[in-house]
Amino acid sequence: MSEYIENDRHGLSVGIIEKRFHITAEPPHEMLLECDARLGPITIAYETYGTLNPDKSNAVLILHALSGDSHVAGYYSEKDKKPGWWDSMVGPGKGIDTDKYFVICSNIIGSCMGSTGPNTLNPKTAKPYGLEFPVVTIGDMVRAQKFLIDALGIEKLLSVVGGSVGGMQVLEWCARYPEMVDSAIPLATTTKHSALAIAFNEIARQAIMTDPNWNGGDYYSGSRPETGLAVARMIGHVTYLSDQSMRLKFGRRLQNKNDFSFNFDPEFQVESYLRHQGRRFVERFDANAFLYITKAADYFDLAEQHGNGSMVEAFSKTNARFLVVSFTSDWLYPTYQSREMVKAIKKTGQDVSFCEIEAKWGHDAFLIPNPRLSSIIGGFLNRVFNETT
Amino acid sequence: MSEYIENDRHGLSVGIIEKRFHITAEPPHEMLLECDARLGPITIAYETYGTLNPDKSNAVLILHALSGDSHVAGYYSEKDKKPGWWDSMVGPGKGIDTDKYFVICSNIIGSCMGSTGPNTLNPKTAKPYGLEFPVVTIGDMVRAQKFLIDALGIEKLLSVVGGSVGGMQVLEWCARYPEMVDSAIPLATTTKHSALAIAFNEIARQAIMTDPNWNGGDYYSGSRPETGLAVARMIGHVTYLSDQSMRLKFGRRLQNKNDFSFNFDPEFQVESYLRHQGRRFVERFDANAFLYITKAADYFDLAEQHGNGSMVEAFSKTNARFLVVSFTSDWLYPTYQSREMVKAIKKTGQDVSFCEIEAKWGHDAFLIPNPRLSSIIGGFLNRVFNETT
Repeated sequence: MSEYIENDRHGLSVGIIEKRFHITAEPPHEMLLECDARLGPITIAYETYGTLNPDKSNAVLILHALSGDSHVAGYYSEKDKKPGWWDSMVGPGKGIDTDKYFVICSNIIGSCMGSTGPNTLNPKTAKPYGLEFPVVTIGDMVRAQKFLIDALGIEKLLSVVGGSVGGMQVLEWCARYPEMVDSAIPLATTTKHSALAIAFNEIARQAIMTDPNWNGGDYYSGSRPETGLAVARMIGHVTYLSDQSMRLKFGRRLQNKNDFSFNFDPEFQVESYLRHQGRRFVERFDANAFLYITKAADYFDLAEQHGNGSMVEAFSKTNARFLVVSFTSDWLYPTYQSREMVKAIKKTGQDVSFCEIEAKWGHDAFLIPNPRLSSIIGGFLNRVFNETT
Repeated sequence: MSEYIENDRHGLSVGIIEKRFHITAEPPHEMLLECDARLGPITIAYETYGTLNPDKSNAVLILHALSGDSHVAGYYSEKDKKPGWWDSMVGPGKGIDTDKYFVICSNIIGSCMGSTGPNTLNPKTAKPYGLEFPVVTIGDMVRAQKFLIDALGIEKLLSVVGGSVGGMQVLEWCARYPEMVDSAIPLATTTKHSALAIAFNEIARQAIMTDPNWNGGDYYSGSRPETGLAVARMIGHVTYLSDQSMRLKFGRRLQNKNDFSFNFDPEFQVESYLRHQGRRFVERFDANAFLYITKAADYFDLAEQHGNGSMVEAFSKTNARFLVVSFTSDWLYPTYQSREMVKAIKKTGQDVSFCEIEAKWGHDAFLIPNPRLSSIIGGFLNRVFNETT
């Protein structure tokens, strides 16, 4: 096992260090995946923030959602328009305090944000994988992350934290590596996708795969399936919002004028907003990566995969303390799904705190600055840190 | 004003008579639309069931939703696999009893089910209209229906009944022709689309309009935008269901086997179901009609268009008795929207009954056989009929 640092870029603030880690366990540097295919060599993009303490007891692993990346907080340079995706939560003195904790944020395999994914060169063909990339699971993503944590010399994670698909990775960490997880914070997530969540993912995938430019996934040397990916993103985006948040943010307001255009141009503000979200997403995200990550999320089923169908059994190996958070207006992973999780954890006798936060912003609420959420997470981590060390 | 009967097909059962009505008010037989364009000549496909009584006091007008048609009940012949779309409600001895009432079901303009719409030949070019078809509103649809009701010699409708986009037409009838409506039954509907409803419609339209075969709406002589329309239908279809109904109907069950395929073929039952729905819809519906009808629904805003922004004012002209019905799991037009409607009607002093029906099936619940709904509607119509005549 060795680690190669491809770039080692230090950020402007909060001590970001951006790195690439190469899993090179043994030649030919391949990992056997759950689908029985082999993938390798594998690179994982990750960032760290803050300092690992001498007894390596202050490491917090943050796991990102579908379209996220390893850049969880801070700015790389003054040119950056936006900080990392969870800057409201992660940084000096924030909920996840980088003055106190050593924060690692790892990109997932299958993504297009620096880690090995369908847009990476396939060493066997010297062309991007496209659909030659094997279907990876949440389990595969977490196993790849485990190589990284091992390479960093960390034996126990003070906490594993993530929302949405990141929350699935949190649950997978607890079930797969129970000895390594002191505490877990799954936010706005589920132990398995409902038929509704699978349906929206499948329609989004259909939008991509029926775009003629998708070309069976082989589009890296030509036009990309931009219209399909934009529609896919718009579908996803609406499922992250809520009736109430959209009513407050857009209502029925028109974009430019007070009267209808009587044509099919965007005219309601919500229409322009969605088209804008679609366009922006296409600039930064790969259509195949969207297919692979949504598929991994659809496949995830904690009880089936770790408990022979029993959620209690799936949680029985972990000794982690849990903080489970759901949001009232999240209709993609509604609170009842978090309650089921909490009930199962309680049955194992583990320590679990559950918090349903009143929020208008739907599934995306976990990403939106919220002093209450910061304080709950900060307090929980503080307690675990004090009781563990 | 004259009526031409193009076909006069009598159905197997429940006394269906299928007809075409041509609006020919005055040459050049055009109707001035709300967008200020002129459309004509206009054909309306409609069906009637039962017999108009001598004093013409038993006419019930049924209005259909987005993808519906004038064939509300019964079978045309023994070859038909399915009866009309609301056969559970309409027929001898049913909730809307065709032994007692004269039922008219009118297709809407802008549709592709026999009435003038974007797939109709444009008399000016002798080619299908495509996007030359003017954007029609719910108001235009109802004004066209008014020509039909006048031609049938009916001065007062015992009731106007419809769900979803049909319910919008019901509300429009009450506001626009208050003197003609004795009672109204708007089901699973709203006085205006929320941002969420507009968002889903817009994404569905985007799916159609980004299909290269859509070709700016001019596709009738070549390949049709089938993949775009299929995606649009899948989006719509999911919004008509509910988390609970999908969990009960599909859950996470796989189509053919017990293990994952690790590819992007449909494997969850809900995926196969949605693809099937998409394919079936493409066989029977026109992509441009989908654009026009969803746009009309997005534009509809009863308070803005009939009450200077006040819903109470919009309802103030009608003397109709109302039966408003919503369904607990309808998240497209949630109950709170029906309650707002009921509150406004009450403020005008009108007679209104409100019923929120406990149902798992989401927005589509109004179409699903439900003895309670049949009995509520039957009882309401009976009371109105007895008190009116």
